[in-house]
Amino acid sequence: MAAKRPFTPRSEDFPRWYQEVVQAADLAENAPVRGCMVIKPHGYALWENIQSPLDRLFKETGHQNAYFPLLIPQSFLDKEADHVEGFAPEVAVVTHAGGKKLEEPLVVRPTSETVIGHMFAKWIQSHRDLPLLINQWANVLRWEMRPRLFLRTTEFLWQEGHTAHANAEEAEEETLRMLDIYAQVAEEYLAIPVRRGVKSRIETFPGAERTYCIEGLMQDGKALQMGTSHNLGQNFADAFDIRFQDADGERKLCHTTSWGVSTRLVGAVVMAHGDDRGLILPPRIAPIQVAIVPIFRKDDDKAAVLGKAVELAAALKDAGILVRLDDREQIKPGAKFFEWEKKGVPLRLELGPRDLEAGQAVAVRRDTGDKAPIAFEGLADTIRRELDDIQKGLFERATRFRDEHTHQASSFDEFVQLLEGPGGFVEALCDGTDETERAIKEKTKATIRIVLEDGDDLGACILTGATATRRALFARAY
Amino acid sequence: MAAKRPFTPRSEDFPRWYQEVVQAADLAENAPVRGCMVIKPHGYALWENIQSPLDRLFKETGHQNAYFPLLIPQSFLDKEADHVEGFAPEVAVVTHAGGKKLEEPLVVRPTSETVIGHMFAKWIQSHRDLPLLINQWANVLRWEMRPRLFLRTTEFLWQEGHTAHANAEEAEEETLRMLDIYAQVAEEYLAIPVRRGVKSRIETFPGAERTYCIEGLMQDGKALQMGTSHNLGQNFADAFDIRFQDADGERKLCHTTSWGVSTRLVGAVVMAHGDDRGLILPPRIAPIQVAIVPIFRKDDDKAAVLGKAVELAAALKDAGILVRLDDREQIKPGAKFFEWEKKGVPLRLELGPRDLEAGQAVAVRRDTGDKAPIAFEGLADTIRRELDDIQKGLFERATRFRDEHTHQASSFDEFVQLLEGPGGFVEALCDGTDETERAIKEKTKATIRIVLEDGDDLGACILTGATATRRALFARAY
Repeated sequence: MAAKRPFTPRSEDFPRWYQEVVQAADLAENAPVRGCMVIKPHGYALWENIQSPLDRLFKETGHQNAYFPLLIPQSFLDKEADHVEGFAPEVAVVTHAGGKKLEEPLVVRPTSETVIGHMFAKWIQSHRDLPLLINQWANVLRWEMRPRLFLRTTEFLWQEGHTAHANAEEAEEETLRMLDIYAQVAEEYLAIPVRRGVKSRIETFPGAERTYCIEGLMQDGKALQMGTSHNLGQNFADAFDIRFQDADGERKLCHTTSWGVSTRLVGAVVMAHGDDRGLILPPRIAPIQVAIVPIFRKDDDKAAVLGKAVELAAALKDAGILVRLDDREQIKPGAKFFEWEKKGVPLRLELGPRDLEAGQAVAVRRDTGDKAPIAFEGLADTIRRELDDIQKGLFERATRFRDEHTHQASSFDEFVQLLEGPGGFVEALCDGTDETERAIKEKTKATIRIVLEDGDDLGACILTGATATRRALFARAY
Repeated sequence: MAAKRPFTPRSEDFPRWYQEVVQAADLAENAPVRGCMVIKPHGYALWENIQSPLDRLFKETGHQNAYFPLLIPQSFLDKEADHVEGFAPEVAVVTHAGGKKLEEPLVVRPTSETVIGHMFAKWIQSHRDLPLLINQWANVLRWEMRPRLFLRTTEFLWQEGHTAHANAEEAEEETLRMLDIYAQVAEEYLAIPVRRGVKSRIETFPGAERTYCIEGLMQDGKALQMGTSHNLGQNFADAFDIRFQDADGERKLCHTTSWGVSTRLVGAVVMAHGDDRGLILPPRIAPIQVAIVPIFRKDDDKAAVLGKAVELAAALKDAGILVRLDDREQIKPGAKFFEWEKKGVPLRLELGPRDLEAGQAVAVRRDTGDKAPIAFEGLADTIRRELDDIQKGLFERATRFRDEHTHQASSFDEFVQLLEGPGGFVEALCDGTDETERAIKEKTKATIRIVLEDGDDLGACILTGATATRRALFARAY
């Protein structure tokens, strides 16, 4: 059989491959309003499966969900100088409503620090009200000039955690705790290894003291920021007057944090694991873990094969495995294989008359293409082991790729060669100034993804040759 | 002990009671933008517990979740004449974004028939693509002049189902199937009995052929529309060109439906069950089902009582019961009782030194105030039975109230007396014209909640005395 070429190969044009796969796998497509997207059922189910462990871990660590309004008075944004400067160019503004011009324009939330800060100031009176640990699942809008499905869209879905604490230590602990949860979900569920650490000043969230992030490496050698956790210090507490009466009777300013991950994570899964035949989904977040395709030529075989397929599907379902029996008529098995393949279903079970006789089905792994018979006897257990193995295999493959694409550069020439050649993460020394960071970006398109180390004299800056006070992880990034 | 009067009694001022309870129970409060609300953790947890059975039932009936954009081009709304007439006065309009004036104003979705219709037209090609069964959980905006927390807010959270079918019969079946699911969740989870049926033309969704609804009766005798299911006929299919190639090769227009329930349901729970001491939550949707309050005077008793309380809480948790051990120091038991009472927790367990000796805790039911000892032995089972009994009791009480507040009026005088007196549902005959319906509303503030029967000659219209062609369920409503 001639090899089909369903998609532009990744090696040829990665962005195009990405776009083709996202659409062909029915994850999402462009909405009529430029920059916005429609998340289709397969993409949304994937997002629900990413939300689920996050929501559980948030709740297990004492956070409660709440919901804050979509519309924010323009004047709120203005209260934190860095914040308004960072977001003003991106916001959508409601000027008319209910058939009239509004007295004050309302901003569609690009993020909710301001309005939540306003509410926290009302809710927090005493040290007994702290820590206040809130999360919300919501849509946000940031006007996007160069949109890309899931990665950069004007509207996206996310969660934003917002917390208030009595002192700096607890706020820092919270910021790092949530970063850990993000890393855990990325690695254990999305099967994407991440580097974690603090951002440089240039890359810090507008209004934050420190931004921590997790960074994944995609197959084109570009980094993707997969989640951020901000220690906001007392900046927003000051702007919104979030104070508490401490045990000593004194009124003190709170320390606040915020942290978020978004539907961008769906894009991360596509780019970290997919191949030239389409999506490859980690079993722990796959909406369908096993697709059963019955195969028969003669009508005589149909009843027996379908009957067994129904039985197997029921057994797997009972065992808590997400199974889809593809019993559609008028569609040939080959077309079904192709469909579940491009949609990333981790395991396909083929079942024909001869398999029935042999008491087995043929399992085909999406990640390796390996084909092997699986006995009906103990089917659910075997499949559960196989799914665990795929989950593990994807994480190991992505880790190997990441490690093979992480290098040290000791000169600017080497730095450029590494970025141009294998791509990926490049660790290098720099003098720690904003100017140098910007110059490196301008010359190479690489940015500091994570600050690895700050010190008095770590060597020489790869760009300026001046004393290096910083070792950083660079990459070109989404 | 002198009776506390935490809230304005319902009999004195029901709207004020409602507002006080919603705020005191930490369900929600007003947002800085007029008409919008902040849903606080207790209110949001309640909403999550309402979402959960709905989402499960949608999926069990073959629906898939997806997500469509918040912003809709103004021109989309204009495509369906009734629809734009119905919603234009309520929409919020984005005129500026990304620092520029937009070429075409964008409407913040008041509902998504138009943009989903646009997408359906792309997705549906063949009869094999039908039925297409989609749901989305989202926020919507409808500018509200007389806002009330949960009941009427400018922004609210909801789900909106949208489906497309090959013929009228299937669309009608779907419309009624979803109405049934709404009624099931209202009765089995929210413990609110509902009347279900079709709306009059005046009350029909703009653009729909027929709107079905479920109507609950609140304790002030006013009806609350708790959910609607619309058979849209071919109106939106025509406006957005949603067509399919049928098995006979012909291109045909689809029949579509839409259906939704919103955070208004939280308000329904408050108004259907609450009393003058606060919220009363049905156990199946209560975020906390059992609150354990340890009681001790002497420090000697503290360790033993707290130790047992921790043990009981763990046992209940293991049994799948949502339990909160209230071990806060510096807050007296009486204040804790009061707090869990106003927040509607179905069952309180009091545990003191003498209870320990007797091998029991004292259970206090929120719905009846009944107090009874429960043995530690078999505690989880006893409590599960008790919770079931509370759930059943609330439904029965609300049903009794509803039945006692449902009357027949055979004259207009009687109609008015019934509305002014006991309030509630009044069944009456009318001539079936829009004019009469409007006149009745103007004179009595009562509207047709459900059309009970249409016929050639059912008697005489209570208002005009003309031949009655309609028997309808009237009520004053939210």
